[in-house]
Amino acid sequence: MKIAIDVMGGDQAPKAHIAGAMAAVRAFDSVEFILVGDQRVIHEHLTSTKGMTILHTEEKILDEDTPTQAVRRKKDASMVLAVREVREGRADACISSGNTGALMTAGLLHVGRIPGIARPALAPMLPTIDGEGFLLLDVGANVDAKPSHLLQYANMGSAYMEHVKKVNRPRVGLVNIGTEKGKGNELTKEAFQLLEQANVNFIGNVEARDLLNGVCDVAVCDGFSGNLLLKSIEGTAGTIFHLLKQEFTSSFTNKLLAGMMKSSFVRLKEKMSYSHYGGAGLFGLKSPVIKAHGSSDHTAIFHAIRQAKQMVHENVVEIIQREVEK
Amino acid sequence: MKIAIDVMGGDQAPKAHIAGAMAAVRAFDSVEFILVGDQRVIHEHLTSTKGMTILHTEEKILDEDTPTQAVRRKKDASMVLAVREVREGRADACISSGNTGALMTAGLLHVGRIPGIARPALAPMLPTIDGEGFLLLDVGANVDAKPSHLLQYANMGSAYMEHVKKVNRPRVGLVNIGTEKGKGNELTKEAFQLLEQANVNFIGNVEARDLLNGVCDVAVCDGFSGNLLLKSIEGTAGTIFHLLKQEFTSSFTNKLLAGMMKSSFVRLKEKMSYSHYGGAGLFGLKSPVIKAHGSSDHTAIFHAIRQAKQMVHENVVEIIQREVEK
Repeated sequence: MKIAIDVMGGDQAPKAHIAGAMAAVRAFDSVEFILVGDQRVIHEHLTSTKGMTILHTEEKILDEDTPTQAVRRKKDASMVLAVREVREGRADACISSGNTGALMTAGLLHVGRIPGIARPALAPMLPTIDGEGFLLLDVGANVDAKPSHLLQYANMGSAYMEHVKKVNRPRVGLVNIGTEKGKGNELTKEAFQLLEQANVNFIGNVEARDLLNGVCDVAVCDGFSGNLLLKSIEGTAGTIFHLLKQEFTSSFTNKLLAGMMKSSFVRLKEKMSYSHYGGAGLFGLKSPVIKAHGSSDHTAIFHAIRQAKQMVHENVVEIIQREVEK
Repeated sequence: MKIAIDVMGGDQAPKAHIAGAMAAVRAFDSVEFILVGDQRVIHEHLTSTKGMTILHTEEKILDEDTPTQAVRRKKDASMVLAVREVREGRADACISSGNTGALMTAGLLHVGRIPGIARPALAPMLPTIDGEGFLLLDVGANVDAKPSHLLQYANMGSAYMEHVKKVNRPRVGLVNIGTEKGKGNELTKEAFQLLEQANVNFIGNVEARDLLNGVCDVAVCDGFSGNLLLKSIEGTAGTIFHLLKQEFTSSFTNKLLAGMMKSSFVRLKEKMSYSHYGGAGLFGLKSPVIKAHGSSDHTAIFHAIRQAKQMVHENVVEIIQREVEK
């Protein structure tokens, strides 16, 4: 199995990406990598070439680039080349932690949608208290979603959680502003009716405040709402950690006490961290395309690789395709 | 000035409500109260009758009641009577921490909209790191909002922050999934254009993750998005505090250390607490109707009273009315 990695996008690129790939070669027998990026920089960090091929390019897409323009104009950008390795069958999956919009555009343009999927969804795993996590889709691939799109998200998410995360009968929830049937806006009211008839384990409406408690395994919503949710969870956690730090460095005594409890804070931060859950899959494409978090470290990249490997190994794309054809 | 308080709704009713009202009588010269609820229970908690009138009723609306039905059928419910005191001019404002939907229904039905306001908005103040807070509207009065509704929210929110919270030229942000112009769904793209032309200090799109950092004074969005935001902020904070507690009670040493840092935790929780910011105003009605949080303690009720008092004192309703007529 070959996975193409864009090593030019993300805050900790290329170091984290190369370290993550080398760790994956050691951990998994059958995985090889195509590292896409500047070969001089790659060689600086690559301490073992086992299982590695380098695809050299110096062009890259920046975070501030306009997605569609960037993908069309920067034909040799590392991200675009990584995606094209998939399209042309030289790689089975690809990973990038660069510009999210550009990766979605490149995925749609070069890898293409599974026939029958109206709109792909961007789907990250988010942390839950019990450490199992839940899949949220969509977080921004499709901001004006229709009820039928949410139905497809439920099917795709359910297939993923069952086959990749080995969850038995994944619980699918519809993100809504109340748990009772009949709550919500026009979109969620219609989507609720479709989901009731769907071939998934639909548990009804779920509220934003219960998601981190693990109320469901798959949460579906339109891309606008999903993006708000994702960013408000990140923002609130960030704010509280900031305030905690402020409090715990406010005096010498506090510093000392907090230092003695460091392992507790580390555990807490880890529980709220995305690193171990892998990246956000672009679901509905013909091959796995994974968006790793922009600030991914080598652990996050390693887990994104593991996730890509499992998606390829379990034929998630074929399973989704069969679901759609039903 | 007279304020009617429904003392039968909310987790800590009637104790918190009566204590909050008594504290307000001591703090403010000109405020009197109509306490609406069971007089026997009220007398148990009322240690000073100064400035207090009791409107006796034993009927109440429950959290699980269907709002419209409950308001129509339970004509003598404490919440309904409190709202009617306002309609009939015996009170200048009213406060309840009961069933949110029922209070919105009662407010619309009995107090009525300001002419020209298409849809009222439910607008809580939320905490920010700097302690100033921001006003979020709407959090669920109107789940399928149109761009023109968001424009009215901006006007109402801006008037409130300027006259009640004394913020000079309140910064109005449009909650969106990116800061650049042109981002978002159909609703926010159209609303952006209206807000650019509006008579408010519009600072453009704001992202969910920046709200708690105080990026704006007034954040406008549709009621569905606002409700998701509110609940995901609450849910994330709740989850982190839960995990913190778990860590800090996980061993004897941790318990001891955490005990020594208790004042830090208390300060942290206070910073993230709604208690000092008052309740959620039902903006766009002909008189101030305020929804206090369901779990309001006496401090939260006191601040909701202060908020109601300022709204009456500053003629916020008239100011909004003049804005609408422009």
